[in-house]
Amino acid sequence: MKTVEWAGDRVRLIDQTRLPWEFVVLDCTDHRQVASAIREMRVRGAPAIGVAAALAVALAARRSAAANRAALLADLADAAEELRLTRPTAVNLFWAIERMKRVIQSAGQDDDNIDPLKAALLAEAEAIATEDEDCCQRIGAHGASVVPQGARILTHCNAGALATVDYGTALGVIRAAHAQGKVAHVYVDETRPLLQGARLTAWELDQAGIPFTLITDNMAGHFLHRGAIDLAVVGSDRIAANGDVANKIGTYSVAVLCKENGVPFYAAAPTSTVDLSLASGEDIPIEERSPAEVTHLAGKRIAPEGIRAANPAFDVTPHRYVTAIITENGVVHPPFGEGLQRVVGAGGRR
Amino acid sequence: MKTVEWAGDRVRLIDQTRLPWEFVVLDCTDHRQVASAIREMRVRGAPAIGVAAALAVALAARRSAAANRAALLADLADAAEELRLTRPTAVNLFWAIERMKRVIQSAGQDDDNIDPLKAALLAEAEAIATEDEDCCQRIGAHGASVVPQGARILTHCNAGALATVDYGTALGVIRAAHAQGKVAHVYVDETRPLLQGARLTAWELDQAGIPFTLITDNMAGHFLHRGAIDLAVVGSDRIAANGDVANKIGTYSVAVLCKENGVPFYAAAPTSTVDLSLASGEDIPIEERSPAEVTHLAGKRIAPEGIRAANPAFDVTPHRYVTAIITENGVVHPPFGEGLQRVVGAGGRR
Repeated sequence: MKTVEWAGDRVRLIDQTRLPWEFVVLDCTDHRQVASAIREMRVRGAPAIGVAAALAVALAARRSAAANRAALLADLADAAEELRLTRPTAVNLFWAIERMKRVIQSAGQDDDNIDPLKAALLAEAEAIATEDEDCCQRIGAHGASVVPQGARILTHCNAGALATVDYGTALGVIRAAHAQGKVAHVYVDETRPLLQGARLTAWELDQAGIPFTLITDNMAGHFLHRGAIDLAVVGSDRIAANGDVANKIGTYSVAVLCKENGVPFYAAAPTSTVDLSLASGEDIPIEERSPAEVTHLAGKRIAPEGIRAANPAFDVTPHRYVTAIITENGVVHPPFGEGLQRVVGAGGRR
Repeated sequence: MKTVEWAGDRVRLIDQTRLPWEFVVLDCTDHRQVASAIREMRVRGAPAIGVAAALAVALAARRSAAANRAALLADLADAAEELRLTRPTAVNLFWAIERMKRVIQSAGQDDDNIDPLKAALLAEAEAIATEDEDCCQRIGAHGASVVPQGARILTHCNAGALATVDYGTALGVIRAAHAQGKVAHVYVDETRPLLQGARLTAWELDQAGIPFTLITDNMAGHFLHRGAIDLAVVGSDRIAANGDVANKIGTYSVAVLCKENGVPFYAAAPTSTVDLSLASGEDIPIEERSPAEVTHLAGKRIAPEGIRAANPAFDVTPHRYVTAIITENGVVHPPFGEGLQRVVGAGGRR
């Protein structure tokens, strides 16, 4: 199944907090369940939460008891707001909700027959999901062109099928390069605190038969320094107009360590991740999550009781550390300003 | 109690694998138990394992059934070899065993009365332990001089009382600076895979009442980049003649991220950690530990079954990233070659 999909009358998603221990499918029959799933990171990854939010808006429309357009719009405004508040950093969430809002504004103007609007919302959400799959395939194809033969690739967090509807962004690049016989090995950062690398990326690569080694985050520098890695590729949660990249905490460190060792560092993301309204990464809001994610692991306390812990979920990598940004509309090299405008414009969706 | 100490007829140590959950004291009545404790990291930290090994040699002498000097020497050679094989990277282990071997060669030459040799070995091992405490106090005093008022300090792994007999090396610097009112805050890297930061450094700082925040290893770069850290100080397991520093995996990354952000990076260690026989850090053997330490945490599997993981326990930080090396005989600045020879010579122990 897909990471997140429409299933007749509900939103169905893979519960990623249960992997790799068990494969659990979560059926959401209410948009609030989807909102909770996003908040609790049962579904995560910038593109996937965008799709989940769009499907949740369609679900809210379907489930609404409203008898006329005004009442439905009120319900949808509430649902959209609830979904917007789940997580602050990945812009795809807001981008997807905005697309749904444009449909709300333009479709089904008849006050008493709200079925056309409901249908239009579902069609749009499903279009967003389909486009995401297509984006990943194209990101993979563009990205494979920058991967040399025999590449040993480092990745951080999970920017795979589980972070999207299918295939993945950074893992899309790795999958496409692997299909071309170019990938010698992948190094997977475990990605504390929530271990998306150890739990999810390792699971995906294992299933895909791509050879890899799991490492703790603090080993990446060691392997870069030893010349064991030829390039790094990661996903992104938001890319500012100047090419600064917000991504999972630890990405900045990977990028600095790559630069210090002369290793190219790539960010792979659909153009829906590009936020041209922000001049630089300094303006990207960084989610601070519960300290318990740091002091506890899989339910077990791993630090003294009652201590203080920080838990910024993302960091910002300044564009000077980024070799190129791989999008569905092409690979953007520095200076990023003009190139990002071009690839965003090429999509014709903004 | 001390981290490791002689207790009448046995070697007593704090079982560090049980912290912070419970405080368990391990009584070793046989040198093999000490060797196992070192291998299993029940006692860890370069200075502490040196002291533990010296006490274990004294214990082997005491427990030996040998009736004459030749038989005792054979037993001690076996014990020393067993202890040497426990862990390869920290040079203090070999340094301490060599000191014990010099006593074996020089003390108690009477073939039939081996009690004086046994007594001399215990005296030497206890001297090594006492000197280690003194070293840490002096490292703290020297190190505090480089700490500015209001310092926000990053540390990695545990180079505290638990890595030494007492007080600590890097934590000795922090303790001394704190006593002078200079420490505003400490950031503690959790230090995967074995979490010496989260489990041990957090425990020590909590007990000492020094304000700190626990972070995952991959957050250090983020806080350095945000200007939240004024200096980093770590311990060391072996320092080459040119100032290259082997220390817990992840140290290299911390040092690179410090340099990139203009933050001073200090290594604190007794001169017994300096190995003038190695021209550079490239010659330092790096211990590779069980992949299970990466794929499992506190007994729970955190990655798919059967996958491959790497587990280098240490990395080497080239001297160009090291601002200064803090020893009991003073702070050594670059170029390190001459300065390290001077502080090692000043001890008069080599």
